[in-house]
Amino acid sequence: MPDPKLLECFPAPSDTPFIIEHVNEEFTSTCPKTGHPDFGRIILRYQPAKVCVELKSLKLYHQSFRNEGIFYEAVTNRMRDDLAVAMKPAWMQVITEWKGRGGIHSRITATSGPVPPEWARG
Amino acid sequence: MPDPKLLECFPAPSDTPFIIEHVNEEFTSTCPKTGHPDFGRIILRYQPAKVCVELKSLKLYHQSFRNEGIFYEAVTNRMRDDLAVAMKPAWMQVITEWKGRGGIHSRITATSGPVPPEWARG
Amino acid sequence: MPDPKLLECFPAPSDTPFIIEHVNEEFTSTCPKTGHPDFGRIILRYQPAKVCVELKSLKLYHQSFRNEGIFYEAVTNRMRDDLAVAMKPAWMQVITEWKGRGGIHSRITATSGPVPPEWARG
Amino acid sequence: MPDPKLLECFPAPSDTPFIIEHVNEEFTSTCPKTGHPDFGRIILRYQPAKVCVELKSLKLYHQSFRNEGIFYEAVTNRMRDDLAVAMKPAWMQVITEWKGRGGIHSRITATSGPVPPEWARG
Amino acid sequence: MPDPKLLECFPAPSDTPFIIEHVNEEFTSTCPKTGHPDFGRIILRYQPAKVCVELKSLKLYHQSFRNEGIFYEAVTNRMRDDLAVAMKPAWMQVITEWKGRGGIHSRITATSGPVPPEWARG
Amino acid sequence: MPDPKLLECFPAPSDTPFIIEHVNEEFTSTCPKTGHPDFGRIILRYQPAKVCVELKSLKLYHQSFRNEGIFYEAVTNRMRDDLAVAMKPAWMQVITEWKGRGGIHSRITATSGPVPPEWARG
Amino acid sequence: MPDPKLLECFPAPSDTPFIIEHVNEEFTSTCPKTGHPDFGRIILRYQPAKVCVELKSLKLYHQSFRNEGIFYEAVTNRMRDDLAVAMKPAWMQVITEWKGRGGIHSRITATSGPVPPEWARG
Amino acid sequence: MPDPKLLECFPAPSDTPFIIEHVNEEFTSTCPKTGHPDFGRIILRYQPAKVCVELKSLKLYHQSFRNEGIFYEAVTNRMRDDLAVAMKPAWMQVITEWKGRGGIHSRITATSGPVPPEWARG
Amino acid sequence: MPDPKLLECFPAPSDTPFIIEHVNEEFTSTCPKTGHPDFGRIILRYQPAKVCVELKSLKLYHQSFRNEGIFYEAVTNRMRDDLAVAMKPAWMQVITEWKGRGGIHSRITATSGPVPPEWARG
Amino acid sequence: MPDPKLLECFPAPSDTPFIIEHVNEEFTSTCPKTGHPDFGRIILRYQPAKVCVELKSLKLYHQSFRNEGIFYEAVTNRMRDDLAVAMKPAWMQVITEWKGRGGIHSRITATSGPVPPEWARG
Repeated sequence: MPDPKLLECFPAPSDTPFIIEHVNEEFTSTCPKTGHPDFGRIILRYQPAKVCVELKSLKLYHQSFRNEGIFYEAVTNRMRDDLAVAMKPAWMQVITEWKGRGGIHSRITATSGPVPPEWARG
Repeated sequence: MPDPKLLECFPAPSDTPFIIEHVNEEFTSTCPKTGHPDFGRIILRYQPAKVCVELKSLKLYHQSFRNEGIFYEAVTNRMRDDLAVAMKPAWMQVITEWKGRGGIHSRITATSGPVPPEWARG
Repeated sequence: MPDPKLLECFPAPSDTPFIIEHVNEEFTSTCPKTGHPDFGRIILRYQPAKVCVELKSLKLYHQSFRNEGIFYEAVTNRMRDDLAVAMKPAWMQVITEWKGRGGIHSRITATSGPVPPEWARG
Repeated sequence: MPDPKLLECFPAPSDTPFIIEHVNEEFTSTCPKTGHPDFGRIILRYQPAKVCVELKSLKLYHQSFRNEGIFYEAVTNRMRDDLAVAMKPAWMQVITEWKGRGGIHSRITATSGPVPPEWARG
Repeated sequence: MPDPKLLECFPAPSDTPFIIEHVNEEFTSTCPKTGHPDFGRIILRYQPAKVCVELKSLKLYHQSFRNEGIFYEAVTNRMRDDLAVAMKPAWMQVITEWKGRGGIHSRITATSGPVPPEWARG
Repeated sequence: MPDPKLLECFPAPSDTPFIIEHVNEEFTSTCPKTGHPDFGRIILRYQPAKVCVELKSLKLYHQSFRNEGIFYEAVTNRMRDDLAVAMKPAWMQVITEWKGRGGIHSRITATSGPVPPEWARG
Repeated sequence: MPDPKLLECFPAPSDTPFIIEHVNEEFTSTCPKTGHPDFGRIILRYQPAKVCVELKSLKLYHQSFRNEGIFYEAVTNRMRDDLAVAMKPAWMQVITEWKGRGGIHSRITATSGPVPPEWARG
Repeated sequence: MPDPKLLECFPAPSDTPFIIEHVNEEFTSTCPKTGHPDFGRIILRYQPAKVCVELKSLKLYHQSFRNEGIFYEAVTNRMRDDLAVAMKPAWMQVITEWKGRGGIHSRITATSGPVPPEWARG
Repeated sequence: MPDPKLLECFPAPSDTPFIIEHVNEEFTSTCPKTGHPDFGRIILRYQPAKVCVELKSLKLYHQSFRNEGIFYEAVTNRMRDDLAVAMKPAWMQVITEWKGRGGIHSRITATSGPVPPEWARG
Repeated sequence: MPDPKLLECFPAPSDTPFIIEHVNEEFTSTCPKTGHPDFGRIILRYQPAKVCVELKSLKLYHQSFRNEGIFYEAVTNRMRDDLAVAMKPAWMQVITEWKGRGGIHSRITATSGPVPPEWARG
C-alpha cells in the first residue's frame, strides 16, 4: 500500500537553487479493474526548497505501490501530493510512462509550483 | 459501431492541472469506400477538468470502430467530439496516424480548447 | 494527364479547425526533357475549411501524373492549385521530395494561405 | 570551365511564393594549388521570382567545374553570383559541403536576398 | 576525502570571454547509507573570469571523492562550491549523471552565476 | 611551434556576407605537464571581412602545434587570436573538442566579434 | 507462488514441426536475499510435440512469480521444468534477461531436448 | 584487496546443463604503475557443474578490487582462477573490457574448460 | 624514432591460454613522401606464451612513431616484428586502420603464428 | 586516360604474409555512352608477394580515370589487370561500388589468385 511515511528527507546541501532528476525504470503496480500488473517508468524532477528526498527511501516508497490496485492518474497525482507534502519543493514534475496494456501506452504529467519553460513538455 | 456510451469517466484525482497521454498502437476501422481494413495509431492528449477517461473503457470505445466504415477525418473528429462530451477537458488533442494504403500514409490532428504552444505540432 | 476532376471532396466532419496530412511515398511522373521516369514523395498538409479531399480520389489524381512529362516545380504548383480550387482550405502545404536524377535530389514546397509558424520549414 | 551560359531558366509555374531545393551529392572540381580533385555536395535553396533554373542545365553547369582549379569559397560565391544573375530569385542560399582533404572538411554558405529565419543555419 | 586544495588554477589565456566544458565519464564515490560504490559522469561547463582550472588537478580532485560516502546532491553542490571558490568564474554549471542503483538513475544540476539561456536544460 | 606566419590569406571572392566552416578531425599537440600527446578536432567558423584563410596554410598552421606543449584553453585562444590578426573577420568561432585523457574529454569555445544567435551553442 | 497448474495446453494444430517463440518484456519476481524486486524479460522458444502452451495461461503462470523470493537461476530452471512437464516439447529454450542490480545485469539460458545449432547462443 | 572468500555459492537448481551470464558495467580497480583508477566491464559466462555463484557475493567480490593496484591481465586471470576454485564449472569465460587510458582501450579473455564454439570470440 | 627498447614485458599471470586485445585510437606517424602527419588506430590481439607487454610501455612505443616518416605497411610489420621479438606470443595480430588521405583510407593486417579461424578477418 | 605507368611499387616490408586494404571513397570516371560523370568507391584488397603499391601512386592512377569514358565492368577489370601486372600479388580483390544513375546502383568484384574464403563475399 502506498506509504508516504517511507519518504525520508535530508537538508538540501545548498541554498543556491539546483535541480534534481530521479528516473525509476522499474516501477510496477496493479490495475484496479483487472488485477493485472502494470509496468512503468517514473520521472521525478524538482528544485528543492529546504530538503531533498533520500534516494533509497524514494525507492522503497515506489515499491510500496507494488501490489496496490491503482489507476495511472492516481499513481501520478498521489506521488506528486506525497512528495509535495514531504519536501515542499520550489517546483516539481512527476511524469509516469506506462508500458502498453492491450496495445495502449500512456504518459501522465503532474506538476507542483512554477515549472520553468524549458521543461514544459516534460 | 462507434459507441460513446462505452466511455466511462472517473473523477480526476487532483484539482491541480496535469496532463494525460494515451497512445493506442493497435487501432483498426474499415474504409467506407472499399471495405478494406485500415490500421492506425491513436494519440489522445488532454488536461482533465473534472474527470478522466478510464483506460479500459477507452480501449473498448476504440474497439467499437472495428467494423465501422468511416473516413480517417471522421474517426478523428468523432473521437474528439465524443471525448469532449464525455470529459469536458481543459484542452485536448486527438491525433490519428494511419499506416499506408496504396502507398499513402496519413496523420490527422483535431483539438478542443487551448492547446499549449509546446504541443503545437502534435 | 493530371486530371483535377478526379479529386472528390466530402464535407469536413467538424467546424472546429483540424489538420490533415497525407504522405504518398509512391509517386511517379516523367521528365519532360528526357522522357525518363521520376520518382518522389508527396506531402499534403492542410487545415480544411468546408471540405476535405477524399483519399482514394487523391491517389487517383496522383496516378494521373504517371505518364505526364512535367517538371518538379510544375507538379508541385499544379497540385497546390488544383487542390486549392477543389478544397479552398484555410491553409495548405504541398511538398514534393524527388529521388536523385544524375546525383541530384530535390524538394519543392508550395503553400496556400497562412501556414502556422511551427510548419515553416515544411 | 564554369560556364553560366549552360544555365537555362523557365518561367516559374506560379506567382505564389514557393521554395525549391536541389541537392547535388556528386560534385567535383580541382584544387588550384595542388591540382588534386575535390569532392563535395552542393545545396541550392531559393524562392523564385519570375524564373526557375532547369534541373538538367543545373547539372551540366555543375559539371562544367569538373576540371577547373578553384577554391571552395570561390565555387560557392561564383555559383551564387551566376545563379543570381540567371534567376534573380527572391532569396537564395548556396551551401557547399566538402569531403575531407588532409583531414579537414569544410562547409561554405553564401546567400542572396533575405533568407527567412528558419533557414538561418542552412 | 574530497580535497579542494588539489584544484590548481592558471591564468585564463585571454580576456575575451570563452567557454570551457570538461566531461568526466569515469567518476566514482560511495553511498553514505549502504557503502556501495556509485558511478557517474560529471559535466563542468563555465566561462572563466580570471583563471581556469587545470585539467589534471580537476581529475585528481574528482578522484579524491573515490572512497567518500556522500549523496549525489552533496557531490554536485560541493563541486560547484569548491570550484566557485577556486575559480570565481563568470558563470558555471556542474551536472552529475548517475548510473542506476536499484533501477533508478539520477541527474543533478547546480549552477553559479548567470547561465546563458542556450544552456538552460544543461 | 605554433607559427601564425604559416597562415596565408586570399581576398574574399565576394563582398556579400558568407560563412565558412573548416573542421579538422586530425589535430594533435602535446600536454605541457606530462609531455603526452593530445588529440582533438578543431572547428573554425567565420564570416570573412576582406580575406579568407587558405585551407592548406590553415592545415600547416595546425600542424605547427604538433610538438608544442600547450593547454587546451591556450590552443583555442591562440588560434582565435592568430586568425583574428590574420583575417580580421566580421565574426569568428574557434571550437576545440578533445578526446579523453584519464576519462575526461573537453570542449573549448572562443569567439571574436558578434556571433549570430543561431550559432550560440557552437 | 509459482504455480504450474496455471499452465494450460492445447493440441498442436499440426504434426509438421514448427517453432514458437513468446517474449515477455514485463516479468517481475523478488530477490530472496534482499526482498527487493527483480525485473526481467523471459524468452520461451520451443518446437511443440503434441501440445502448445496457451498464451494467457503462460502470462498468469509468469505473474505467479510476482511476490516469490527466488534466484534468477531458479526462475529459469523452474520454468524450463514446469513447461517441459506440461508440454513435453521436441526441444525448448527458456532465456531470462535481468535488468541491472548494483550495476550487474544477467542472462540465464536453460534448455530441454536437442536445440538446433542456429539457436545455440540463445 | 581481492578477496575470494567473499564468493558464496549455492547448489545449481538443476542437473540439466544451462548457461549463466553476469555482466558488471561498473567495475573499478587501480593501476599498479600510476595509482590512477581503471574502469571496466566484467563479463562472466559459465555452465555450472554443481554450484552457482550468488550474485550479491559476486558484486562484493568485484568491489574488493576497488583499491587494488593490479594489471588488467591479472584481474582477468585472478577472477577466472578464484571462480574456478569456488565453482568448478563445466566451462567458464571471464572477459574484461577496459575504458581508454591514454587513448588505448583493452579487452582480455580468460577461459576454463571447453568453451563451446559459438562463444569462441567471447 | 620507433624504439622497441621501450617495450617492457611482465610474466603472463597464468599458464592457461588467454587472449589480450589493446586498441589505440590515437596513433600518429608521418608520411615519408610528403612529410604530412598520418592518423590511425592500432589493434594488437594476441595469446601470450610466457610474457605480456605492459600497457604504458606499449603506449610509449606507439608514441615513438610520432615523428617518423614511415609507410603504413612498414608500421604494421615493424610492430608485428618488434612485438614478436619482445613477447614471442603463441599467436598475434597487428591491425592498423588509417584515416583518409586524399579520400583513401587503409587497413593493414599482419600476423604471427597460427591465428584461430574466428579471427581470420581481423 | 587510365595510365598503369603511374603505379609505383616498393618492396614488401616483410616476407611473412600480410593483408592490405585501400578504400578510395572519391573515384570518378565518365560514362562512355552519355559522357556524364560516374561516381564510386574503389576497394583494393590483396596479399603482397614481393611488392606493395605505393599509396600516392595508386591515387594518381585512380585519378587518371577521371575523364575516361569507360564502363563500370571495364574499370574493375582494368584495375585488376593493371595491378596484377604491377604487383603480382599472392591474391587480390578489386571491388567497385557505384552511386546510383537513373535509380540503379552497382557493385562489381574482380579477383586475381586464390582469395581466402573469409573474403568470398568481398
